[in-house]
Amino acid sequence: MNFKGQHILSTKQFDKDGLIELFQTAKKMEKVVDDARKGKQSKILEGKILATLFFEPSTRTRFSFETAMNRLGGRVISNFDMMNSSSIKKRETLWDTGKVVSQMTDIIAMRHPEVGSVEKLAKGSDAPVINAGDGPNQHPTQGLLDVYTIWKKFGKLSGLTIGMVGDLKYGRVPHSQCDLLKHFGIKFIFVAPKALKMPEEIVGELKKSKHEVLEVEDFGSVIGQMDVIAMTRIQEERFANKDEYKKYAGVYVLDKKLMGKAKKDSIVIHPMPRVDEISSDVDLDSRAKYFEQVKNGVVIRMALLAKVLGKI
Amino acid sequence: MNFKGQHILSTKQFDKDGLIELFQTAKKMEKVVDDARKGKQSKILEGKILATLFFEPSTRTRFSFETAMNRLGGRVISNFDMMNSSSIKKRETLWDTGKVVSQMTDIIAMRHPEVGSVEKLAKGSDAPVINAGDGPNQHPTQGLLDVYTIWKKFGKLSGLTIGMVGDLKYGRVPHSQCDLLKHFGIKFIFVAPKALKMPEEIVGELKKSKHEVLEVEDFGSVIGQMDVIAMTRIQEERFANKDEYKKYAGVYVLDKKLMGKAKKDSIVIHPMPRVDEISSDVDLDSRAKYFEQVKNGVVIRMALLAKVLGKI
Amino acid sequence: MNFKGQHILSTKQFDKDGLIELFQTAKKMEKVVDDARKGKQSKILEGKILATLFFEPSTRTRFSFETAMNRLGGRVISNFDMMNSSSIKKRETLWDTGKVVSQMTDIIAMRHPEVGSVEKLAKGSDAPVINAGDGPNQHPTQGLLDVYTIWKKFGKLSGLTIGMVGDLKYGRVPHSQCDLLKHFGIKFIFVAPKALKMPEEIVGELKKSKHEVLEVEDFGSVIGQMDVIAMTRIQEERFANKDEYKKYAGVYVLDKKLMGKAKKDSIVIHPMPRVDEISSDVDLDSRAKYFEQVKNGVVIRMALLAKVLGKI
Repeated sequence: MNFKGQHILSTKQFDKDGLIELFQTAKKMEKVVDDARKGKQSKILEGKILATLFFEPSTRTRFSFETAMNRLGGRVISNFDMMNSSSIKKRETLWDTGKVVSQMTDIIAMRHPEVGSVEKLAKGSDAPVINAGDGPNQHPTQGLLDVYTIWKKFGKLSGLTIGMVGDLKYGRVPHSQCDLLKHFGIKFIFVAPKALKMPEEIVGELKKSKHEVLEVEDFGSVIGQMDVIAMTRIQEERFANKDEYKKYAGVYVLDKKLMGKAKKDSIVIHPMPRVDEISSDVDLDSRAKYFEQVKNGVVIRMALLAKVLGKI
Repeated sequence: MNFKGQHILSTKQFDKDGLIELFQTAKKMEKVVDDARKGKQSKILEGKILATLFFEPSTRTRFSFETAMNRLGGRVISNFDMMNSSSIKKRETLWDTGKVVSQMTDIIAMRHPEVGSVEKLAKGSDAPVINAGDGPNQHPTQGLLDVYTIWKKFGKLSGLTIGMVGDLKYGRVPHSQCDLLKHFGIKFIFVAPKALKMPEEIVGELKKSKHEVLEVEDFGSVIGQMDVIAMTRIQEERFANKDEYKKYAGVYVLDKKLMGKAKKDSIVIHPMPRVDEISSDVDLDSRAKYFEQVKNGVVIRMALLAKVLGKI
Repeated sequence: MNFKGQHILSTKQFDKDGLIELFQTAKKMEKVVDDARKGKQSKILEGKILATLFFEPSTRTRFSFETAMNRLGGRVISNFDMMNSSSIKKRETLWDTGKVVSQMTDIIAMRHPEVGSVEKLAKGSDAPVINAGDGPNQHPTQGLLDVYTIWKKFGKLSGLTIGMVGDLKYGRVPHSQCDLLKHFGIKFIFVAPKALKMPEEIVGELKKSKHEVLEVEDFGSVIGQMDVIAMTRIQEERFANKDEYKKYAGVYVLDKKLMGKAKKDSIVIHPMPRVDEISSDVDLDSRAKYFEQVKNGVVIRMALLAKVLGKI
């Protein structure tokens, strides 16, 4: 797949070779970060400007894009409160906003609460646009960093048993992970309450492409089979009442005791922020990779910025 | 005129020679931008810091200043929500804010909803201050980029027929354009509803200085004479009621059909954001320059920053 | 004392030698700033990234940290509205926020309205954290720049008579100044209304360590003895009613007339913003150092950033 000059709007754009190529580039970026931290600044994106347009706040994602750009020697202009920008209040279309901002900058990373919004802006933009989250729809760099974390640990993806736990119905994260992992031969274990099961459409597609899929409600009975334990948050808003929320939220909590049943060589990933779904006594377990994921997010975004800007 | 170390508060500061000098510098800046986009970063303003102080949001203007500073190798510190800064809430005077911020930075770009506010801050500041809009009063870099866009296209200003269309009474933009264009021999055509006519004071001044001025209500009857069609938005707030607004807003809409009557060699400019006053079917017309204006805004601000900081 | 890799949370961390070492480094930083302003950018912190996390707005303090980082060739990522960040709204702990942000950046400067909040974040952080104010508790770089301003003027601290005027009970600033000055032999004169006297605990500690302490209500009777006149704001919120506030606020106003009684060689400092407590007719008096303090704040933060990052 070709990266140069492309908008990155969805995990569906990526094919197997593109993913491996991106992961290999991300791996090389770790040295660029190490060098920067030691005072040797990369000049790969020198002269380039990234605009971050955030229509809803997400410090972690914005900081990750901005760190990535800075580590490569590029520069950043930023608005993390775009909903209050005068253009938007004056009813400027997203097409116009994209056209205008792209006259100034070389690449745009955008987040917005509405499905399809980033694509609208990208249609007007003369510069490549990276979707940093469009509501419940897509957030491709999150999926990419999740799968990169797995690939980096195991040196491969095919043949792994990957468990996804929590809200698999509404969660943008597990859907994106499936989009990317389906290019490799995976055994999926989906652990969710009945009301929050992985959509049948996704399960069907995975099965059709010869993946093994196991769907269960009992986390403890399957954790021992998983190479990857991909946790997600169960949001209170999804439930009819607080009692029902507490019932399920209480069930899918990963703690030290449950980690005792997990494989020695497995890893735990989570998109963060976590609240109660991973107990803090797991943090020091060397299998916990959710903080390392933040580092992986920087290098995957560095790889993407460099490739989309045609510099690698 | 001397730029070095000057506050840039008003279009009234500029004389004919100063304008041409600035435009010629801006033209050279286009190569600096091209070089940066190819990875060759300018060092003209290396070491310098621009503070952007925005007391009301304007992403486009702020991004333009910040892009300009970055393209020249300078750095930026930014606050786009100054109304909520603790100093302002603690009733610090703008004089003090100017004095304080200028102890840290080399130049300041400021926007504020109140007339005269930027001048107040500039009085306290030890660093040059550029007015990025003080309410309905002044926004000199907007006027400069408008006139630069015309100069760049025609290679001259004298002898042109320039039409201004829309709200000519309250619009800061057409007033600034007149301030700058009056140094050249221009034929002005002002197209506005009676309630929104160009103020008599400005018309009088232009006539006194031997400019030809035509004032009409009917856009279609004069568009064919214009070298420049300078559109502005008619704001709903200006009218007694919605019906009256719609009556006028509906009249001054530039669309493909109307463009059929315009000169082959004319250009359309607009300060953006546009809402309904320019139909999207005009966007692909090569005479539409309102997106190119955004690029011109960056180079005119680069020229101004470099000149005020004494580097060119 | 060792700076490298340390969190800087409190003025209580500093000892006499550490302070002098820091002040000497800050003095050298003045040349780095001069060089930058002339276009010669330092590379001392090239490659490093500072994150500024402000949970309450403080433009002056944030700008000072960001200017300091930029003057040293480092880069900045910034959030000045952290209270609205999605992680915080999703109830992420400060420990997690610290862990996450420190995976991306090399150093963090944080401000928060709650006592102890910065320490909580620092506990999770893998990168050094500098407290840029945690509510009424600590704001060490403010105290450091105050005392640096005195040291720079007099070339020493021991033997000076230092007056503190205003709200000495609740004011974070005078408490921090005492924390730092207590390492040197100082004569303290505390001028405050009865209701806002310096806490007995601090007075006791100073007396125990053989400092001379004078406590008075009448400013005019003692100003002539002071080498340093350290003014602070009396906040209206501290009083039962507006009348009582006005009574005291009116008393501790430093104006040209009162400056007539002050020593020729004294200096006036103030943390800014000032409202009515220093009359603007004092601004041009060469003894007024409250704007120069802003410059001193930049170099003291440069020294701290460079030392904590192990680069000097």
